[in-house]
Amino acid sequence: MASKNLLLLAGDGIGPEAMAEVKKLIVAMNDKLGSGFITDEGLVGGCAYDAHGAAISDADMAKAMAADAVLFGAVGGPKWDAVPYEVRPEAGLLRLRKDMELFANLRPAICYPALAASSSLKQDVVEGLDILIVRELTGGVYFGEPKQIIDLGNGQKRGIDTQVYDTFEIERISGVAFELARTRRNHVTSMEKRNVMKTGVLWNEVVTQTHKARYADVKLDHMLADAGGMQLVRWPKQFDVIVTDNLFGDMLSDIAAMLTGSIGMLPSASLGAPDARTKKRKALFEPVHGSAPDIAGKGIANPIAMIASFAMCMRYSFGMVAEADRLESAIAAVLDQGLRTRDILSDGMTEVGTTEMGDAIIAKF
Amino acid sequence: MASKNLLLLAGDGIGPEAMAEVKKLIVAMNDKLGSGFITDEGLVGGCAYDAHGAAISDADMAKAMAADAVLFGAVGGPKWDAVPYEVRPEAGLLRLRKDMELFANLRPAICYPALAASSSLKQDVVEGLDILIVRELTGGVYFGEPKQIIDLGNGQKRGIDTQVYDTFEIERISGVAFELARTRRNHVTSMEKRNVMKTGVLWNEVVTQTHKARYADVKLDHMLADAGGMQLVRWPKQFDVIVTDNLFGDMLSDIAAMLTGSIGMLPSASLGAPDARTKKRKALFEPVHGSAPDIAGKGIANPIAMIASFAMCMRYSFGMVAEADRLESAIAAVLDQGLRTRDILSDGMTEVGTTEMGDAIIAKF
Ligand SMILES: CC(C)[C@H](C(=O)O)[C@@H](O)C(=O)O
Ligand SMILES: CC(C)[C@H](C(=O)O)[C@@H](O)C(=O)O
Repeated sequence: MASKNLLLLAGDGIGPEAMAEVKKLIVAMNDKLGSGFITDEGLVGGCAYDAHGAAISDADMAKAMAADAVLFGAVGGPKWDAVPYEVRPEAGLLRLRKDMELFANLRPAICYPALAASSSLKQDVVEGLDILIVRELTGGVYFGEPKQIIDLGNGQKRGIDTQVYDTFEIERISGVAFELARTRRNHVTSMEKRNVMKTGVLWNEVVTQTHKARYADVKLDHMLADAGGMQLVRWPKQFDVIVTDNLFGDMLSDIAAMLTGSIGMLPSASLGAPDARTKKRKALFEPVHGSAPDIAGKGIANPIAMIASFAMCMRYSFGMVAEADRLESAIAAVLDQGLRTRDILSDGMTEVGTTEMGDAIIAKF
Repeated sequence: MASKNLLLLAGDGIGPEAMAEVKKLIVAMNDKLGSGFITDEGLVGGCAYDAHGAAISDADMAKAMAADAVLFGAVGGPKWDAVPYEVRPEAGLLRLRKDMELFANLRPAICYPALAASSSLKQDVVEGLDILIVRELTGGVYFGEPKQIIDLGNGQKRGIDTQVYDTFEIERISGVAFELARTRRNHVTSMEKRNVMKTGVLWNEVVTQTHKARYADVKLDHMLADAGGMQLVRWPKQFDVIVTDNLFGDMLSDIAAMLTGSIGMLPSASLGAPDARTKKRKALFEPVHGSAPDIAGKGIANPIAMIASFAMCMRYSFGMVAEADRLESAIAAVLDQGLRTRDILSDGMTEVGTTEMGDAIIAKF
């Protein structure tokens, strides 16, 4: 049997609380189903900075490189607002993405039927929504050089960031988007700002070529990223798979997540290229929500996004499709039952804490 | 009396139809009120390319530099999708912004009461919404160098865009935001990605310093741009003035516009610095909507955003506050009366075309 080595990086804020529920689930699966997960743990973010002076230590980075999959909680909080840029909590996450070459970030925006009413959008606009944002994750303005602040003298400074994309980077991320579209509604919308950015011109060109050469059976549309943001708000159901760059993907996937009214519920997967020999992809799974320092340690955080991230992990890293389906159904069933953490509470529902929510899902699994 | 020289650049698509309604209004104001507007016209966008091979000719650019204000329609359309990047329709607008040094783009997102129900957001989320996005317009990734596509050989190309901000650029745009906040609800939210971008770090630092030195009476919040996008969708009424860079401003202002359900209704103003001698600011006024080539020439375009842009022009360029107020009230009155162009049509309302809508507003003015 293939190995199932998981590295758990719970991070800061509500990360550890949410991760605790996944740990319970893993123990239960190992005990009852003999699933054979082997877990190890490490530090990332502010807690890693406190312990080692870096947002992730080289030792933990090595563990991440060796693991079959990484489960990531969340990083950051006001405690670390003033630490130097190079060791800020986010630097740990960015190093994981870069060193593991996790170029493909998959962010499903799904509207759970039980939560359709809690969106700020009209119910008919979001009910049944199921879109997938495929975000390029190792390029663009996040990593391009030069990236610096220069002192110009005279009280003036100059900040510089550089957005860079090469053909092969656009090719491989659009390949992922087209492949996934084939398993869904066969429709990809590519978003960039080709009317202003040269990287947008190249993005548009390469996506078009990749489509023509290898995926002509998939419907492809192009949209300017600003218009795309508007269309997401106007009528999100027009989309199936959206493929876009690192920075636009950051903005657009957060907006898509918020549409569903379920930001505390949404998972994400970050995948690398298949290894030439083993065919395995490096992978990291992470909830879309952040560290929520204001509610950390109170036992009220919603663990669903973290648990759903573990479902994605089973699906994409271990081919455990049946188990992933069952876990997702368990989440939906618990919601149908009326259980809610505070962030998604509405009239007539039963408020539960983090551990009760985790227990309820495990019980239904 | 100060001069009132207006340059009208109607542009492409529905631009000319919408501008025609403003022209009627100007004629009426000159005739009945002796307003003394003097208008000239020029070409911008695809029509300028067709006529001169450039997205704006040097002659028209000179007229824009000399005018007291420019009214701009919209540019672009499929006809020019394949023209070279340097002369694409948008290049005309970008040259106007750059050469006139229109660094401050003001985009009000207002929800007209008569249209609150037509938003894709729940009525209570958007009803009464009145926020102002102050977008930096002459810097950032739109204009930074290098901006190019390099051929790397081997079928590989590299696209590069550069985001650059200097202290003085951030200082002057945040000054505009703080000044405007004082005339409103006294609250500014600054948005950037300081956790990923060095320009974000500098942006945050300079806004904070400007606030401390000159505007400590205004409430200032900082938000990451991705979180800001989410909060706009979740509960937009938490904002008063949002100040942000060129690219984030492009995305966020379009999203804010779409929230209101009134994208065909929203104007914008782009302002330069006050002239040292005359104190006058160069200015361009433009609807937020684009050229909408699919409905161009059919007489069904909504002229309200263009007319509301002229109201902003009277307010900001000519100090005609009473007239601007009256024009905005006339728009609201016509909407209350039930008149609607097709883009905002709903049950029980009366559909009218572009010219009827213009006539109705002029009649109420
Ligand atoms: C934490 C931050 C660096 C990160 C990003 O900007 O990519 C986050 O917003 C995300 O979307 O995963
Ligand atoms: C037309 C285009 C160049 C422009 C921009 O990106 O600034 C438009 O989207 C806008 O927001 O005014």
